Amino acid sequence: MPASRTQRGVFITVEGPDGSGKTTQVELLATYLRARGADVVLTREPGGTPVGESIRALLLAPRHDGRLAGETELLLFAACRAQHVRERIEPALARGSVVVASRYIDATVAYQAYGRGLPLDFVGQVNAFATGGLKPDLTFVLDIETEEGLRRARNVHKETPEGEADRIEGAGLAFHRRVREGYLAVARAEPDRCIVIACEGPIKRIARRIAACVHERFPFL
Amino acid sequence: MPASRTQRGVFITVEGPDGSGKTTQVELLATYLRARGADVVLTREPGGTPVGESIRALLLAPRHDGRLAGETELLLFAACRAQHVRERIEPALARGSVVVASRYIDATVAYQAYGRGLPLDFVGQVNAFATGGLKPDLTFVLDIETEEGLRRARNVHKETPEGEADRIEGAGLAFHRRVREGYLAVARAEPDRCIVIACEGPIKRIARRIAACVHERFPFL
Repeated sequence: MPASRTQRGVFITVEGPDGSGKTTQVELLATYLRARGADVVLTREPGGTPVGESIRALLLAPRHDGRLAGETELLLFAACRAQHVRERIEPALARGSVVVASRYIDATVAYQAYGRGLPLDFVGQVNAFATGGLKPDLTFVLDIETEEGLRRARNVHKETPEGEADRIEGAGLAFHRRVREGYLAVARAEPDRCIVIACEGPIKRIARRIAACVHERFPFL
Repeated sequence: MPASRTQRGVFITVEGPDGSGKTTQVELLATYLRARGADVVLTREPGGTPVGESIRALLLAPRHDGRLAGETELLLFAACRAQHVRERIEPALARGSVVVASRYIDATVAYQAYGRGLPLDFVGQVNAFATGGLKPDLTFVLDIETEEGLRRARNVHKETPEGEADRIEGAGLAFHRRVREGYLAVARAEPDRCIVIACEGPIKRIARRIAACVHERFPFL
């Protein structure tokens, strides 16, 4: 007989526009939680599974620029998520792990509904279908002034071998302003789940604030 | 000034379970229509565009067997279709071509809703979103007794270099019976659009029957 029944894990997502520092913050949060003894699954969207990484490559390839319809894009993100939930997130939660994901349902609301102008209702339905209704226990919305976020995103890309912004980051200032507005609208609509974090000041200070929020919400972590 | 305003084209789909002879019949129909002077775009789903062919490869790879969730599958087919409609089908219809497609919306109803048991309502909504409401002008539903269809599909695959049935064809007899039932249900629900063709007897006789139906419905072709 096993010593104790496994408790269901905790699902935390980190959302925010390009250049808001999601990748850095999910890594710092994972490091923090692991140091406290948690079993952490660090993952990202689009991606997170073998099929999902193939879909990610399709979505982000600059060669599709201007050819990938907004509808195609939405459905590919949703396909990626459907697989991610069933193959990776749900099994990890079932064995009691903490899942920390960079981007999830709110990214689709922000980018595809607010950014690209696809119908918000349908985006919600597709999200619900893709996830089987699985919502994060806690979501951090990293907020950054749009021009500053794009400037930071460009600097990150300058350091990569490709040397150029990917397809989605190249979509223009007005688009990125709508994305930010979308994230803030999501956070306002679900204040119990979402915490907006202003991404100003040192990275470590932001990481400490996130860690404190996690600790407050889940004292057992 | 151009001699005449281009008339909108005609959209014909050929549907049916594995082994019903879709590939052969769409080719014979295209040959027939071209011989009569029509500009024909012959296409297929999943596929039909560069992105769509990449998605097709993901969907049909036997290495994903048992790992690709039904929800992922539905959303990938829909993504493929969204791109197909916007990049290939709509532009061809706008310039007056006849589009002949092997598989379209009805395949998703038959395979994903009836076959895999995903909710019929949601499948309909996803189809409507992916296509922007574009329905075929005429659909042939090739009907074949399930065991016979699977036997024929296996024989086709024996002749291919891979030498094995693809992932979807390997899903079992009960599944394929539900798919056939789904196709017949679609045809009953939309009798003005769908013509059921019993796939018995010589291939050429079936082709003549299809050509006669097209000619009757569109005398200008």
